[in-house]
Amino acid sequence: MSARPTTLDSRTDLLQIFELAQQLRVDSVRSSTSAGSGHPTSSLSAADLMAVLLARHLHYDWSAPDNPAGDHLIFSKGHASPLLYAMFKAAGVISDEELMTTYRRFGHRLQGHPTPVLPWVDVATGSLGQGIAYGVGIALAGRDLEKQPYRVWVLCGDSEMSEGSVWEALDKAGRHQLANFTAIADVNRLGQSGPTELQWDTAAYARRAEAFGCRALVVDGHDLEEVDRALTTAADGQAPTVIVARTVKGRGVSEVADQENWHGKPLPEDLAERAVAELGGVRDLRVRGPRPPEATAVAAPAAGPVELPRYDVGDEVATRVAFGKALAALGARPEVVALDAEVGNSTHAEDFRKAHPERYFQVYIAEQQMIATAVGMAVRGYRPYATTFAAFLTRAHDFIRMAAVSGITMALCGTHSGVEIGADGPSQMGVEDLAMMRAILGSTVLYPSDATSAAALTAAMADIEGISYLRTTRGAYPVLYSEDETFAPGGSKTLRGGGDDDRVTLIGAGVTLHECLAAAEELAADGIPARVIDLYSVKPLDADALVRAASDTGALVVAEDHHPEGGIGEAVLSALAASGSNPAFAHLAVTGLPGSGTPGELLDAAGISRSHIAGSARALVERR
Amino acid sequence: MSARPTTLDSRTDLLQIFELAQQLRVDSVRSSTSAGSGHPTSSLSAADLMAVLLARHLHYDWSAPDNPAGDHLIFSKGHASPLLYAMFKAAGVISDEELMTTYRRFGHRLQGHPTPVLPWVDVATGSLGQGIAYGVGIALAGRDLEKQPYRVWVLCGDSEMSEGSVWEALDKAGRHQLANFTAIADVNRLGQSGPTELQWDTAAYARRAEAFGCRALVVDGHDLEEVDRALTTAADGQAPTVIVARTVKGRGVSEVADQENWHGKPLPEDLAERAVAELGGVRDLRVRGPRPPEATAVAAPAAGPVELPRYDVGDEVATRVAFGKALAALGARPEVVALDAEVGNSTHAEDFRKAHPERYFQVYIAEQQMIATAVGMAVRGYRPYATTFAAFLTRAHDFIRMAAVSGITMALCGTHSGVEIGADGPSQMGVEDLAMMRAILGSTVLYPSDATSAAALTAAMADIEGISYLRTTRGAYPVLYSEDETFAPGGSKTLRGGGDDDRVTLIGAGVTLHECLAAAEELAADGIPARVIDLYSVKPLDADALVRAASDTGALVVAEDHHPEGGIGEAVLSALAASGSNPAFAHLAVTGLPGSGTPGELLDAAGISRSHIAGSARALVERR
Repeated sequence: MSARPTTLDSRTDLLQIFELAQQLRVDSVRSSTSAGSGHPTSSLSAADLMAVLLARHLHYDWSAPDNPAGDHLIFSKGHASPLLYAMFKAAGVISDEELMTTYRRFGHRLQGHPTPVLPWVDVATGSLGQGIAYGVGIALAGRDLEKQPYRVWVLCGDSEMSEGSVWEALDKAGRHQLANFTAIADVNRLGQSGPTELQWDTAAYARRAEAFGCRALVVDGHDLEEVDRALTTAADGQAPTVIVARTVKGRGVSEVADQENWHGKPLPEDLAERAVAELGGVRDLRVRGPRPPEATAVAAPAAGPVELPRYDVGDEVATRVAFGKALAALGARPEVVALDAEVGNSTHAEDFRKAHPERYFQVYIAEQQMIATAVGMAVRGYRPYATTFAAFLTRAHDFIRMAAVSGITMALCGTHSGVEIGADGPSQMGVEDLAMMRAILGSTVLYPSDATSAAALTAAMADIEGISYLRTTRGAYPVLYSEDETFAPGGSKTLRGGGDDDRVTLIGAGVTLHECLAAAEELAADGIPARVIDLYSVKPLDADALVRAASDTGALVVAEDHHPEGGIGEAVLSALAASGSNPAFAHLAVTGLPGSGTPGELLDAAGISRSHIAGSARALVERR
Repeated sequence: MSARPTTLDSRTDLLQIFELAQQLRVDSVRSSTSAGSGHPTSSLSAADLMAVLLARHLHYDWSAPDNPAGDHLIFSKGHASPLLYAMFKAAGVISDEELMTTYRRFGHRLQGHPTPVLPWVDVATGSLGQGIAYGVGIALAGRDLEKQPYRVWVLCGDSEMSEGSVWEALDKAGRHQLANFTAIADVNRLGQSGPTELQWDTAAYARRAEAFGCRALVVDGHDLEEVDRALTTAADGQAPTVIVARTVKGRGVSEVADQENWHGKPLPEDLAERAVAELGGVRDLRVRGPRPPEATAVAAPAAGPVELPRYDVGDEVATRVAFGKALAALGARPEVVALDAEVGNSTHAEDFRKAHPERYFQVYIAEQQMIATAVGMAVRGYRPYATTFAAFLTRAHDFIRMAAVSGITMALCGTHSGVEIGADGPSQMGVEDLAMMRAILGSTVLYPSDATSAAALTAAMADIEGISYLRTTRGAYPVLYSEDETFAPGGSKTLRGGGDDDRVTLIGAGVTLHECLAAAEELAADGIPARVIDLYSVKPLDADALVRAASDTGALVVAEDHHPEGGIGEAVLSALAASGSNPAFAHLAVTGLPGSGTPGELLDAAGISRSHIAGSARALVERR
């Protein structure tokens, strides 16, 4: 390579940009061949699109990725990482050596699919159909929250356009008329295992994008002038735009171009050599694309005091109600935003809308997009609270999983947990959410039983790193704690007993804590003193309190309004096992299919009501 | 009520059908008011649509719901159950007494949202945006598998059209040109908490449906003639149809019609009385709609013998490869169908395509629709195997959850589990799937470690009731079992040791079993005899073998390529706790965020490789 690379800038002639595109192709081939895995052909199809974008349209300060006015580029087709990393090299932020010796290798940052371990990557991609959704979230944050001039560019594949999440996202781009948002669909006709559903029917993609309220521009993705014109139009501030680019997978390498069976395969070394030659050899072009405009000067709004509502012990208040009020109060912190999936009158997220309409986002019934919007806003430094029924958060499981890979900090609230909801029946009952949320990397899982703790934990979530989850209950139950009690992740409360003479420990959270308290009354009448623990922090767990209870009482009963797998009972067992503690143990959970009924009938039928808890406790005590 | 109800049939004048619609309204009001909960206003908007459908277009034998030629009616807007149950009453299959005294009550079948506990209901609904997806699956089964003349009618709400899953589904209706499929969108403008995203923009819905390849018919949903014409057109056999019906929520009851804040609320008794009066009072009309056509006589194809491939012990074969070959062999059973989310060359589901193309369905990258199609086919008696990467099954979590509520039997296979996949990185690694699948009601979770067991368990899944899940591994590992070994849900294999002198038990499945075997070699060299258990059945668990191992060796090490929450370790702890068994216990699982690397590097970095297993075992043994 020459010692002084040629530098292109935004006035560079398209002929030179073609050379840049060829360089991106060459580097995509070289890096994946050197790594022995990767997706060169998926990179080759989009190289022309990205070369024009990089040189002429992406307003980005590569030395300051945090510039608030800088554009955002998301590779929704994350498997085209060779192309993205080749762009990074052309931008001068990674070296050829890093590209050639670390791509896809252990311990290095140029992973198989991009993640935010790289400073120029906002979100992890690789689960297809998510990049557009995140892009919409970032665009919304930019226009409506930050009021910064940046644009969001999302490169997506054609295969992923089959994902419903893409249409949830474009629907929102259209609804909000996000003129700062552009999706570039690389329609290369070939998916992983064969032709895509729509192949080169670019008109069909365009019709769909338009039907969802976006502007569609169909281009030949290898005609640099056409691409340049489309990107210019996309940036005209008029409408959210979907550029539908007809491309050829493997473009530029005649032996693989438009051929099946080349997805996700590096070119063998000999073929790679011929490919590089056909592409004109290794180049060392550098790009200095357009700089971001001046950032909007926004005075950081002052944080007001967060005054949580207070509750009187004994009053009956639903935790979902307390959540809503606390969330509204938390809006005094200007970074807090709330997202709703059209159930705000049930989840009580609407309390936030009433107090802070400018930071409340109605995503309608589109849970995947609700999470993606939250992720996009978190990328821009906001603290999102996204809320729906616990059962319906399962709809967004893959987005929550990927948000954890992205290292996102956000708060989720799932209401209407368990069979407790009553007459609506099993479709509305969240009885798998604890398992789902506990298994999310780095998550915090909270499950308050009364209004005071629900309010305190809702507020605490604004300072928890990673993904935190609050599980709330439909019905109203007595307030247990006075306002001076404190609650923190990893804590618990011993609500009854606590001395040496306790003979059994009853552990509950949410509705089952109230059942545990009632069971303890029954047991006391039988002369069996019971300790009752409010395990409001399901992850992390208060292992000390559990081990102490095991040691003091020798017998633990866990009751939870959730399936037995992956919930509170197994969390307790894990904590005890890690401590080498082995009490007698009974686990009451929902094992059958519930129907409709009153909360009391359903708790009893599921075997998690006070009488079952007391019965289990008696059996454990008698057995010892 | 009169002793002899008036009976309407398909030649009945529309004026009489109006009376039927009013009856459906009256009964919707009465049942929900009597229950004290429910969604009368969401029922009133669709009453005219359903009255015309029921009397003139739904070819259904109410006395024989199993008639293979009978139409299918799915209430995607399951909360409109008062309307559905009012239709059942009009059809004469439930009594007014059942409607008025059992709706939404404990222990009864007229639940808040319909489930297949009712013989006229195919699938549980209530998680919005799913009914169209199931309907597409049933329509595909009817046309391409059963070749029966039935039609599928899906009533959906307008709010749920925001769900991406709706567009995944309509895309498939369009792609397959399912002329036996009709969706009827009840565009009543009001969602749960306010106006819907598109309100009465029926043209927008129509554009979208057309862009996805369906025929759209916009009608006034209260003009019986228009509705009748549209339903007639929908049944003309020409195209999949979306009827976009402009309606009024609460139609017919002037005090609530088109009013906000009436979603999901029964009318108070006094208002209900006025409503019934306004609607013309209680009626007792019965409907005898059109009968199904003659069922197609199809000779049940003979089941051939299932000859599973055999593997030689020691050969290196990936379990995903063995799955694909076994699935292809299993195709000898004519009820077996395979569904793919465009990764068949990775999952090896494509082996089935090559062997049985007529029963292979490429759903493209649309995991929710893949599961919904499987559910639809299961409703029609087929045994679906739906396959994608384990990580991407999380995309369909809500559909899998609802399939369990529906009591569906289907087999799922998740490939590329764990960090073992190597260079592709965390977005592609299934490390939450065991938690998700264990927590599904009634599920069976299998996780083979070699080709012989993978083949046997793939075959076993065809006879497992409920939702079964097979977890497979990307890489090739030695075959451990000869062809004469048997494997069954709830079983395990002790691969090493088993006698009294074992001092520790190593428990693995999938890739970690091979690591356990290698660790046992290391331990043997140190003079520590170790038992090794292949826990290929994660749910149900072989509790006996675990308790015996705990008793014999006193120390258990579980290693799993999954997050610690909800996986194998917690399953083992639950089984031991239920048995009162308390061995020393170590749990090795993936606790950090992996990157790219070789499988060996990543297993080691996650602390689940042979050296970590041996180290944990040594520590346990020394501690005792």
